[in-house]
Amino acid sequence: MSCYVTHMEGAIDGTKLPAGQIQTLHKDRPIWVRYDLKAVARALSKDMLRDREPTMWRYRELLPVEREKDIVSLGEGMSPMLYCSRLGDAFGLRDVWMKDESQLPTGSFKSRGMAAAITMAKAFGIERIALPSAGNAGGAAAAYGARAGLETYVFMPEDTPVINQYECVLAGAKTFVANGLINDCGRIVGSGKERMGWFDLSTLKEPYRIEGKKTMGLELAEQFDWQLPDVILYPTGGGTGLIGMWKAFQELAEMGWLAHDRRPRMVSVQSEGCAPIARAFEQGERFAEPFDNADTVARGIRVPVAVGDFMILDAVRESGGCAIAVEEARIREWIELSMSCEGISVCPETAACVGAMETLVEQGWIKPDERVVIFNTGGTQKYVEAITSTLPKIDLQQPIDWEMIASV
Amino acid sequence: MSCYVTHMEGAIDGTKLPAGQIQTLHKDRPIWVRYDLKAVARALSKDMLRDREPTMWRYRELLPVEREKDIVSLGEGMSPMLYCSRLGDAFGLRDVWMKDESQLPTGSFKSRGMAAAITMAKAFGIERIALPSAGNAGGAAAAYGARAGLETYVFMPEDTPVINQYECVLAGAKTFVANGLINDCGRIVGSGKERMGWFDLSTLKEPYRIEGKKTMGLELAEQFDWQLPDVILYPTGGGTGLIGMWKAFQELAEMGWLAHDRRPRMVSVQSEGCAPIARAFEQGERFAEPFDNADTVARGIRVPVAVGDFMILDAVRESGGCAIAVEEARIREWIELSMSCEGISVCPETAACVGAMETLVEQGWIKPDERVVIFNTGGTQKYVEAITSTLPKIDLQQPIDWEMIASV
Repeated sequence: MSCYVTHMEGAIDGTKLPAGQIQTLHKDRPIWVRYDLKAVARALSKDMLRDREPTMWRYRELLPVEREKDIVSLGEGMSPMLYCSRLGDAFGLRDVWMKDESQLPTGSFKSRGMAAAITMAKAFGIERIALPSAGNAGGAAAAYGARAGLETYVFMPEDTPVINQYECVLAGAKTFVANGLINDCGRIVGSGKERMGWFDLSTLKEPYRIEGKKTMGLELAEQFDWQLPDVILYPTGGGTGLIGMWKAFQELAEMGWLAHDRRPRMVSVQSEGCAPIARAFEQGERFAEPFDNADTVARGIRVPVAVGDFMILDAVRESGGCAIAVEEARIREWIELSMSCEGISVCPETAACVGAMETLVEQGWIKPDERVVIFNTGGTQKYVEAITSTLPKIDLQQPIDWEMIASV
Repeated sequence: MSCYVTHMEGAIDGTKLPAGQIQTLHKDRPIWVRYDLKAVARALSKDMLRDREPTMWRYRELLPVEREKDIVSLGEGMSPMLYCSRLGDAFGLRDVWMKDESQLPTGSFKSRGMAAAITMAKAFGIERIALPSAGNAGGAAAAYGARAGLETYVFMPEDTPVINQYECVLAGAKTFVANGLINDCGRIVGSGKERMGWFDLSTLKEPYRIEGKKTMGLELAEQFDWQLPDVILYPTGGGTGLIGMWKAFQELAEMGWLAHDRRPRMVSVQSEGCAPIARAFEQGERFAEPFDNADTVARGIRVPVAVGDFMILDAVRESGGCAIAVEEARIREWIELSMSCEGISVCPETAACVGAMETLVEQGWIKPDERVVIFNTGGTQKYVEAITSTLPKIDLQQPIDWEMIASV
């Protein structure tokens, strides 16, 4: 197994940094991993991919790991790309797809970033990791931390969905809740790093979660036979996935693997309850101001401050895309619409993307024949608080009331 | 696309029945689907599989669907087979694996059976389906029902995990709770069939859910390069999966695809809170008496009466396996052990299998070098009631108590 990483690069100023050693931030901003893409293009062919396992590690030449034995895996990746004819019909669209990341370990897309970051942490000999999480990242870190044999600390807002809390505890992570938001939890990790001997696995505070998330873009390209779609709708909290996919498309283009020059318009989707990126986009800013009183049932995008704000906004603008905030009160309606149309287990963050699709179609920004891909970043099943329902009851002590049953 | 089904066969007496039409039970007992396996062996090669999608439909020659366009799919199948070194170590075993079915649509193995059954229902022009469910089957039926555009009715015990209830509602199924167990709910479906125009999708009351579940055995064989393991531990409610896998191994043997003659010893795992199959096995019976006062946190195996009892017990005995009931009070312990050792999101039913492994190792029934496969039939995340935990709190209004954090 060969590694094609040439160097690292500060995202804010392009400074070259060495690979092969632990990296965190550069000038308080994230770091890119750079590869010798010409060498990758020589070493890897599309045909070779056909014989590889259906996991994200099929793209290992575009990932930072040096030795195969270091890979920490729960079988993540190659989530299905599902055609959604009924959901498309509901909005007058003919070519809508959903990439179903709920079918990954721990039921969310966070597996990809954690598989990459924890693989690298373990390869560097790190033994103790910590991170803040507003939702699924904690569960994924706990799972991959357990798989790698690391000690894992997770700090969550006290109103994080309980399933996310419990999945961390069960996987043996030392898990805490705090009366604040994800950035407050991030400060606990930051202030305890030296004292506790933690490696900080926060979003974009180490360079490898992007590389894992990048595989969503690589898979999407392969699944569409290297022809990228017109529009990608992606829910945005910390933004790693959107940034990672945009990086994937650049890398594939440099390798000469894309069927045509056109890249997707990237849509960064937030809720009006927490919309720092959408606001900065509208105001023409490159950096986003913190969003006050952030709240949304889509807990994964309740991220009032993102250290990679400029990377998200750069990608959105370069792509000709946009950032948009949807109506908080309609999230449940979009969950039910998606699930009853297609049977895909859609989380509130994904529902926000369906809402964004509605608005962008109404505005004429998405055209009826365009190919649209929505990322379903996690299973609805993890959001018990957001999906509570009251069911009609049948009393078996009484004769069955068939009229009631027929009327539901 | 060709279909290799030759006929159907009553499981209780071997009566030949016609294929190509709607079938339910024969003499109140389940029906097998039979194939021209020689023709399948001529039409399909192991090499051909390598080029196919990583879903259960890669084995379409061994599935009953005639036309590719009828397939109702959410991308189910090819769940990862994960080596579990730490979990094995905990019991002195060197070759323990988990097949992680939590990475399927709706987070459970039930997707496989429902994908097959609902594909066939739709192909036969059925428009309205109904079933009882004690857990994940309801959610899967609702999802595939939605994907197929069918009207779906689900009846659940009122203490079914709430996530299972909600996922049905969100996917648009007409969902009811009743003050009884799964067999009581089954009676509602049975008594309403004609009045409501329902097709009864209950476990084993139509022939195709077995065929879908059979793909667990086909995948397992392919993932181990056609060498079957020594022992398979499988949680048993209605038993479709165990029956289906045993059928898969028979079919592969007849096709000449297995690397050696040895078949796995099949272990049917239940909880002492509901153990009709384990009890019948011990008593040397072919049919199981209903289990009174059935209760277990592993809701998926709270099935006091199974219409396929003799099929489960036949398979277990033919294989040289056993049926075993584990200690109910230790299920949570086994969940935590599995998840903290391996990071796999293990449901209570799977935890029972880990408990069975413990007992069978102690008894010398499983030897240290034997290859053991445990099926993780669903994600822990769907069992909020069984996994409730209390987390330490951090008050951000106060200085951070590092001693408390370090002591957890």
